[in-house]
Amino acid sequence: MTVLDHRKRLPSADRRQQILDVSARLFVERGYEAVTMGEIARALGVSRPTIYSYFTSTEAVLDVLLQERLHDLLGRLEPLLSGARMRPAPGAEPPSLIAAVFRFLLGECDTLALLHSGGGPTFQARRSAFLNDLGARLQLNPALQIRRNPALLLIVTTLLDSLAFRAATDPGVDTEQLVRSLDAFVRGGVGPWLDDPCLDGPPLEE
Amino acid sequence: MTVLDHRKRLPSADRRQQILDVSARLFVERGYEAVTMGEIARALGVSRPTIYSYFTSTEAVLDVLLQERLHDLLGRLEPLLSGARMRPAPGAEPPSLIAAVFRFLLGECDTLALLHSGGGPTFQARRSAFLNDLGARLQLNPALQIRRNPALLLIVTTLLDSLAFRAATDPGVDTEQLVRSLDAFVRGGVGPWLDDPCLDGPPLEE
Repeated sequence: MTVLDHRKRLPSADRRQQILDVSARLFVERGYEAVTMGEIARALGVSRPTIYSYFTSTEAVLDVLLQERLHDLLGRLEPLLSGARMRPAPGAEPPSLIAAVFRFLLGECDTLALLHSGGGPTFQARRSAFLNDLGARLQLNPALQIRRNPALLLIVTTLLDSLAFRAATDPGVDTEQLVRSLDAFVRGGVGPWLDDPCLDGPPLEE
Repeated sequence: MTVLDHRKRLPSADRRQQILDVSARLFVERGYEAVTMGEIARALGVSRPTIYSYFTSTEAVLDVLLQERLHDLLGRLEPLLSGARMRPAPGAEPPSLIAAVFRFLLGECDTLALLHSGGGPTFQARRSAFLNDLGARLQLNPALQIRRNPALLLIVTTLLDSLAFRAATDPGVDTEQLVRSLDAFVRGGVGPWLDDPCLDGPPLEE
């Protein structure tokens, strides 16, 4: 008998959580679309019907995983976004919201990896929905005056998500330098909008 | 008989190309990791041994696809990166290399979709390798003085790739506004490095 004998009869809530945890690991290790219900059952040493008594499909497993983990992530991000220390003292430069949010995301490796574990259209749509949700929260923050421009919001959320994932999966990245560089980059990048909050994208020279 | 009868005996090179084209479509439609050699055979109406006589695995199909299409893409990007019109006239602001590269990527929907069709670690490693290759070419261009900072290069390449993919797959995006906004954003973002090419990331206030 192994230390953790998955076949042992578990309370329903524990079994459900076990399925979720093992599925998340398999999705990340093999790519979400590669994983079948049979493989989740095999990894847990239980029968397929056992898995099906909790979830109707791997898509249902994914939906619960993303819903729970992203909801949890956004909940923990909230204090950063709404915290008093984000309000600049009069005359002082605002503390860096972008650096704080990016550092936070770098600490969320597991959720980021799950959010990037698939490649099909329905999976991509789920990631887009999360980024839109993140953007909706970011644009409410007065330290980032990006509410006027949907394109700017798309740029900032895409950058935060994809860069944090790339940094979290590439051991060669100097994360400290990356945080500093990203902070300077985004400050400079949103500069034109801070000078003119009504900016709708400057004209391009041809 | 259908208009395109895949079972017809084809010259070897045509059959190989047919397998590549159908596989690329399946990878994008279903997610790379979901596709098996049997499904590629079924989609073409040929036997599995026929597919195996050309490729040993779906990974081998993917490698050839990425190698051919990304090499082709980088080849077509080269004139943009090295073209004479990228050299600014004395005293004039340089034409926007970022806007030009981003517009180019937006026109490469199929290759972008393929490059984002997987979610497993080996797939992600392939995308990272391409982005590093893109970065190596970008940093040679004098119009973008980002050669001094690997973090800045990581930021710009990640942003270009992920944003172009997100824009190409979301019909709600106003691409014209996005190009203008991205151009202003990146110009502002690289500003601190243009002022000080030796910048290694400014200190963050705590």
